[in-house]
This record gives sequence, C-alpha cells and structure tokens, in this order.
Amino acid sequence: MQNLRLTLKSRPEGKLGSEHFDRVEEDMGPLADGKARVRVVYVSLDPAMRGWVSPDTKSYIPPVQLGETMRSLGVGIVEESKSDGYKVGDWVSGTPGWTKYVDVAPGEISVVPQMDRIEHYMGVLGLPGVTAYQGLVIEGQPKEGETLCVTGAAGSVGSLAGQIGKALGLRVIGIAGTQEKCDWLTKELGFDAALNYKTDDLSKGLAEFAPDGINLHFENVGGAPFKAAFRNMAAHGRMIFCGFISAYNGDIDPDPLDMTTIIRRRLMLKGFTMPDHYASYPMLFSELGKLMMQGKLKYRLHVEEGLENAPVVFNKLFDGSNTGKLVVKVSDL
Amino acid sequence: MQNLRLTLKSRPEGKLGSEHFDRVEEDMGPLADGKARVRVVYVSLDPAMRGWVSPDTKSYIPPVQLGETMRSLGVGIVEESKSDGYKVGDWVSGTPGWTKYVDVAPGEISVVPQMDRIEHYMGVLGLPGVTAYQGLVIEGQPKEGETLCVTGAAGSVGSLAGQIGKALGLRVIGIAGTQEKCDWLTKELGFDAALNYKTDDLSKGLAEFAPDGINLHFENVGGAPFKAAFRNMAAHGRMIFCGFISAYNGDIDPDPLDMTTIIRRRLMLKGFTMPDHYASYPMLFSELGKLMMQGKLKYRLHVEEGLENAPVVFNKLFDGSNTGKLVVKVSDL
Repeated sequence: MQNLRLTLKSRPEGKLGSEHFDRVEEDMGPLADGKARVRVVYVSLDPAMRGWVSPDTKSYIPPVQLGETMRSLGVGIVEESKSDGYKVGDWVSGTPGWTKYVDVAPGEISVVPQMDRIEHYMGVLGLPGVTAYQGLVIEGQPKEGETLCVTGAAGSVGSLAGQIGKALGLRVIGIAGTQEKCDWLTKELGFDAALNYKTDDLSKGLAEFAPDGINLHFENVGGAPFKAAFRNMAAHGRMIFCGFISAYNGDIDPDPLDMTTIIRRRLMLKGFTMPDHYASYPMLFSELGKLMMQGKLKYRLHVEEGLENAPVVFNKLFDGSNTGKLVVKVSDL
Repeated sequence: MQNLRLTLKSRPEGKLGSEHFDRVEEDMGPLADGKARVRVVYVSLDPAMRGWVSPDTKSYIPPVQLGETMRSLGVGIVEESKSDGYKVGDWVSGTPGWTKYVDVAPGEISVVPQMDRIEHYMGVLGLPGVTAYQGLVIEGQPKEGETLCVTGAAGSVGSLAGQIGKALGLRVIGIAGTQEKCDWLTKELGFDAALNYKTDDLSKGLAEFAPDGINLHFENVGGAPFKAAFRNMAAHGRMIFCGFISAYNGDIDPDPLDMTTIIRRRLMLKGFTMPDHYASYPMLFSELGKLMMQGKLKYRLHVEEGLENAPVVFNKLFDGSNTGKLVVKVSDL
C-alpha cells in the first residue's frame, strides 16, 4: 500500500510554501500487531499550524521537528485493524498529520460516533467548535444581555463563537473582510450586526452598536479590528485572545496600543489555546452537539483537493480568500 | 480663618505645572451645622492624579472639573465640629483635595484610629498599601513559591507589593531606576533580587532569576521594564496592571508588543483601580495592619513642604527623583 506524507524540511521565515516540505512516498508494509491502519479523509488547515513550524518560542506545544510529518488535525476511517481498540470502518478524529495513511495504537487517535456527515468533525465538533466554545464560554464567562464583538467573524472559529454567543443571549457584532461574509453573518447566522473592516469605519460602527462599550471580545486576527475593539471596550470588559493571525507570519503591527486603557477601564486580556482544556472535551462535545442538533450552529467548509497542495492552500487563511473552515480532502469517505 | 486651595484652571497637555491651577485664598467663614472643619496635615501625590485632570476618557472616575479644588488623598485633624460624626482632635483620612482646610459632612471623610504616627495613613494604611494589596492579592491570586516581578519596585506601591509578596512566600525580583533604590529593595525590604533598568540587561537578568519564567507580574511603569517582563512570562502567567506611568503624560511607547505572546503563553493581563474594591477596605486594612505590626511592611515617605508647591513637586513621580511615597506637608499635626 503506497503512502504519501509531507515532512518538514525547513522552517519558514514568512509564508509557508511547498519548498518547506519534503514529499515522502513509501510503502506502508504490513500492519504491526496492536495497531490499526487509518486512511485519512480530511486534514484541517488552521492558523495555529504556522506557530507549530516556528522555532521553539516557549509556545504551548513543542514545534514540529525537521524531518517529522507535518502536524495537522484530521478525520479518517479505519481500513485494517490488529488492535482491540479499533475495528474496520470506525471513524476516527485526532492529529493524523499531513499523510494519506497512518498506523495508530489505541490512545493515539479517537474513535468518534458516526453521524450524517463526517465533516461535522472538521466543523462544529472539530477544532473550530471546541475552540470557540472554550474561549467564549469557559474563558469569557458571558452573561445574558452582554455585548459581544468577534473579529475574524466569518472564520471557522469566529462564526461559531458568534453563534454560541447568540444562543446564550448576547448581542453580537462581527467584523469580517468582505460584504459577502458580513451578509452571511447577519442573514444566515443571526449576528445582530457586522462590519467590513476594509470599507467600514470600525470605531464608529462599534460605538454605534455598543454605545456603552463591548463587554466581551473574541479576538482572532489582530491589527486594526483588534484595535478598534480595544478602544471601544466597556469598563471591566474581557478580551479573549484566540488568534492573532495578522502577526503569525512575523509582521508586528507598528501602531502601538495605549496600554493605560487596560487600567482606566480595568480590562482583562486573556490568551488561551485548545490543549489547555483537554479535560473539558466531553463537556464541550456534549454542549456543542446539543446546540448543533437545535440548528443553532451552522458552518461551512472550504474544501481543497490533494494533500500535496496543503502547504500552498494553507496561505488562504492569511489572505482571507477561504470561504469557510479550510480543509484538504485526502480521500473519499 | 484663612484658607488656601488650588483649583484646576486648565487641562495640561503634558506635564502638570503651576500654570494649570488657580490659588484661591478665602475666608472659611463660620462652620455650618452638621459639619466638621478639618485641617489638612498631609496630601498625597499619586500618578493616578495625572489622569484625573485629563479630559474624560471613559476612565474609572470622573475628571476634576475646571474651577474645582484639585482632587487628592490626604489626612488631617478635626479642628472644630458641629457634627455628631466627628469630634475635635479626630484623625481623618480621605480625599480632602489640595486645600488647607475643608468642611465635611459625615460620610465625606473617614475617622481613623490614632496610632504612633499619622504618616502610616499615607503609606501602608493609605493608597499605596491598599493598592498594593488589592492588586497583588485580590487580582493576582499569588501562590506560595511563585516568582513575582515588580516594576517601579522602589515606588510607594511597588515596594509594598514586593514586601507583601515576600510575606506570602513568593520569590520576588524588583526593577528600579537607581543602584541606591535596588540596594534598598534587597538589603532593607528583603527582595530576593533587584535590577536597575538604567544599567542592567533586564531580559538577561530576569531570565537568570526566573529561568522558568515569571508567574506573577505587578506593573507600575510601562516601557522597557514592562516589555522585558512581558517577554519573560511563564505559561499561564498573570500580569496585573496597577500603573503605566511612562504613558501618563501622553507618551506612547513606539516599540510594539508581540501580542501573540498572550496566546502562546496563555497570559492574563488585568487592569485594576483602587475604587473598584471599596467593599474590601475593612479586610484590606486589617490584613495590612497585621503585616505592618509584624514588621513585614516598611515604607518611606518623601515629604515636601507647602501646598502651593504641589503641582511642581508632582512631577517628581515621573522623573523618579522622589525617594519614597511623595506627600506634601500642609500643616503640623
């Protein structure tokens, strides 16, 4: 059985590209006892992966080593099993990496319930949903009636954070980068308002929507949208930092913040990452599943074909040209 | 009885000066029924006052209005009373403002217990002690064995924050601006280490003192000391913002922060101001009094004479030339 995987060849300075990865074509050989062979169906492309290929910077997770298969979340199906933990046909979700096949031992990847679509595990029940829920609800402690602002609001995490906010009784404004995305937020997802950071005056728009200030802010992108929110926070407002994508390729915004705002308005700024809340996973899945079944959480995928294209397709996350949760289809279910 | 008070004439753009205040000399007239006349002994000069004379910026407290007596904490003694709430000779502590005398009704200023020195109410039992305790303990939630960094460590609040940290079993490093201040921190106050931000390599010094990073940081000044601490925070570190004095005269540090650090290390940045914790005052007083009686909290005052000099003397806070909690002596006890 022929496999293809992409291993890290060199650490990028700026954008990720094909030149940073080696294509490894190899025969899988026979399956070892105690293991199962997984055929990957989708791999997930997420902004955090840019940090995983950076040199070690005391980050929350060790960097991918040179020569290692690129780390990536994904879903797949068990093709062959010599393990009691897996049976042929099982759906699995975890971190297979950029590979067509992977042999796993129990504990290395999770069997998940089969639903109408395996794609749910890339969306509401995948990294985007879990991240949105833990950031908004566990870190942000929202209270009914509060005003929530979400940047990167049409992104996979932002769109779910906003919808969870609506489900919990918050007033929600989203900031996105095209009129089409803004329309999707207000007309399809039920956001109360949306601003286009390329054409709207953000400070004015936020001040009009939230004359008493923003109580809770969910940050995904950094740059001008972040600053507009920062300047419009209410006293005792909380800003939850999920992502700061504008800085991931090494660009640091040259326009400094007035940090005294943090004191004058007694703000809390709090960063979080998904692995800090592994213990909450069962609760997160259950809560997200409930909201999804009630039709309150919609998402859309942006599917690209072909594992070998992953390094280049990845950059769509940074220019905003993806139109949903970005995934690469590796094989048919 | 002749009074002198300073009222706000115009809002400063940068530094405070005599030109921003009017000297009002007036006769106090007879004391009204239900009131007490307080002779002010000390007024306190604090960095936060710079914000109180700025235009309204959604701050935690309304600005001082033009024509109003400049707001200021202080202590005094009751000279005459036509109120059941006060008797002649009572010590009072509160917000008399920049004035020699003030007539107060019950609730406007607090009677405080008489101790060996009235100066304690400008130090440990005044704004510095209360601010240090609420920031470090209530906001920072320190745990024994953690590493604490304090900027503006020789300042009135910073020196007490560090000493409270030591009393609670933390390892404490202070950052200050002269060798004399650093020596005072380590030799007199029991800090474990001190760095001089004018001569020491702060990043190197912090990394050596805290190879696993800073768990809790107490910020008073901003600028380079803040940034060095920010870059040396441990995962899940908390940065408590008490003051950011380097920015109070309108200067914003042009060197931007890498905000992705907040996510990668899951930091919490939290601003606070004294008035948010009025409800905790009795507890704060009791805890601070206990530590002071145990000899664990030392402070020093920097006394200047003459109310009329307050606007100019105030700037010592910003050039670091005060050698203790800055107060103006208005009259003898």
